[in-house]
Amino acid sequence: MRIISADSGAALLNEQFEATTIVASVAVLVEPPYRLAKTCIAEPIFTKVINSHELIVHELALCQALLKETRADVVHLDMSFGGLLMEELSPIQISNISSKARAHILKILPKLRKLAADIKRVYGIEVLAIGKDSIPVRIAELTAGAYAVLYAAEKAVKEKTMMRLGMPSKCYARRVEGGVMVHSLSPAEHDIAGFAVDNNVVLEKVTFSELLNPCARGFRVLEFSPKPLT
Amino acid sequence: MRIISADSGAALLNEQFEATTIVASVAVLVEPPYRLAKTCIAEPIFTKVINSHELIVHELALCQALLKETRADVVHLDMSFGGLLMEELSPIQISNISSKARAHILKILPKLRKLAADIKRVYGIEVLAIGKDSIPVRIAELTAGAYAVLYAAEKAVKEKTMMRLGMPSKCYARRVEGGVMVHSLSPAEHDIAGFAVDNNVVLEKVTFSELLNPCARGFRVLEFSPKPLT
Amino acid sequence: MRIISADSGAALLNEQFEATTIVASVAVLVEPPYRLAKTCIAEPIFTKVINSHELIVHELALCQALLKETRADVVHLDMSFGGLLMEELSPIQISNISSKARAHILKILPKLRKLAADIKRVYGIEVLAIGKDSIPVRIAELTAGAYAVLYAAEKAVKEKTMMRLGMPSKCYARRVEGGVMVHSLSPAEHDIAGFAVDNNVVLEKVTFSELLNPCARGFRVLEFSPKPLT
Repeated sequence: MRIISADSGAALLNEQFEATTIVASVAVLVEPPYRLAKTCIAEPIFTKVINSHELIVHELALCQALLKETRADVVHLDMSFGGLLMEELSPIQISNISSKARAHILKILPKLRKLAADIKRVYGIEVLAIGKDSIPVRIAELTAGAYAVLYAAEKAVKEKTMMRLGMPSKCYARRVEGGVMVHSLSPAEHDIAGFAVDNNVVLEKVTFSELLNPCARGFRVLEFSPKPLT
Repeated sequence: MRIISADSGAALLNEQFEATTIVASVAVLVEPPYRLAKTCIAEPIFTKVINSHELIVHELALCQALLKETRADVVHLDMSFGGLLMEELSPIQISNISSKARAHILKILPKLRKLAADIKRVYGIEVLAIGKDSIPVRIAELTAGAYAVLYAAEKAVKEKTMMRLGMPSKCYARRVEGGVMVHSLSPAEHDIAGFAVDNNVVLEKVTFSELLNPCARGFRVLEFSPKPLT
Repeated sequence: MRIISADSGAALLNEQFEATTIVASVAVLVEPPYRLAKTCIAEPIFTKVINSHELIVHELALCQALLKETRADVVHLDMSFGGLLMEELSPIQISNISSKARAHILKILPKLRKLAADIKRVYGIEVLAIGKDSIPVRIAELTAGAYAVLYAAEKAVKEKTMMRLGMPSKCYARRVEGGVMVHSLSPAEHDIAGFAVDNNVVLEKVTFSELLNPCARGFRVLEFSPKPLT
């Protein structure tokens, strides 16, 4: 089964370690044994957390863009409704969530259903609202984390200032040959990771250190500083 | 404290990675330091998931069978009611669970209470509905996973076809001298495992590979294929 | 950000592996990268579990005592109310918890608010009811576990009897040069620990072994026995 999925992730943090700005969105294609993305599309988004409710629409559009490049059997969307078909998701089926979250979803539901119907019509495949149960969604999250490392490092270099990046839940970043690898630290996910290729060699231009987010158990933080010019 | 427990586990999966058939039931005896079964009874059951609600009765009967062979101080049953005595569990005490689950339990409660009363009368020990809090229940689950590996491999050989086995939550299988070991990947359970002895040397007759269940985070899958005859 | 936090932890267990007596309270100062306590105050408390509801007041008093010795930017208290200010926590804000827990909290709320107001007045810093989301609270818990190892060992020596100590959730103790280290086994906390210095060399006077608490998944147990005099 070839699965396409998308997620947005990693966030710039303020001095109180609170997320202010979501950094990256990616769509990934994942194949057996479902441990890494086979191909992906990544974008720096730098969207205020307060405006992040509509990101899921952008994520599904990214899936659609990836489908233009490669074939897949199903799309996994980061919405946790037990794997219901996106195209058929109705206001009634989301009646068991909080009224605040519900209001946000109702606003974007028409756009999501439209995109899901387009994908079904053009590629003949379903979009599932599977969210937290999906390994491809998790791989999209880790891949977004890996690209966010590059985008945050780039921003630190460009703006000549320190950047504090809050990584996705339960993972850590590691510099590897040619890019950055973000490994899952969730139970039973020791062999799952996201990778971002560092085309601009931006990691050479920063120093970075890792700490724990003191106000959010399970979340790690990277602080990037531009290297002094020599 | 010597504890007897039982569980059923591991499931054959269809092409959508959904569980169709529960493979194995085991009863285990566990002693300090509570890391592995001391002895066990294992059975291939191959029960449709849709009929699996009555398995708990069979599991308690397996505990009773194991008590004929060995002494224990208490029985841990895989039902999560905070360690209440099975013998005294009443319809009122299970009023806080979903109506669907409640209907299933009410149907089997008389049989469970009868078995628990028998065990109390004959062996003088209690049956606790402790479920997810119990380490012996977890060891029973991992041991069922280990035997399911052998049973699924046997089925692949016999039916000359590929078998896809969904392992229990957060664990992985490893071939070891004389059998198969299933290690827990849950937090703080790195030294807990289940073992199955491969009397028929069935693992020699298959190749197998591990993947992640893309639709169920935390669950690993093994695919068994019969080795070509040489 | 320098954070002061406190917790009480580790418990003597009876033969059924049930907690009877809370062993230690500590306050810790934690600095970036938030992996270990920088300094701490530890106390043997040996408080019956049944009387443990007021321990949180004692913990905040320990934080206040630590503030006399060292500067901090904020206090993290082990009460899980999403990081609300302790000083402003009102009976209305805790209306969404169980009535039993609520009754316990209402009884101690005036004392907690008084202490938080004192800390604000004297040191100009806030007390947050952040609980389970806080890494410093977790470090306090692990440090309490480390000191509890020493206190339980001491008690075994003094009373010439075996002591069974239930460790905090998802951690294990390791004897190290000069004391005992308690490492977290929670996901993504592999580099977080608590340390206790063994001034009285009490660990030389006992033997101890580790087992799993069979009735509480995720919890490990240490059994201490005094070494025979030679």
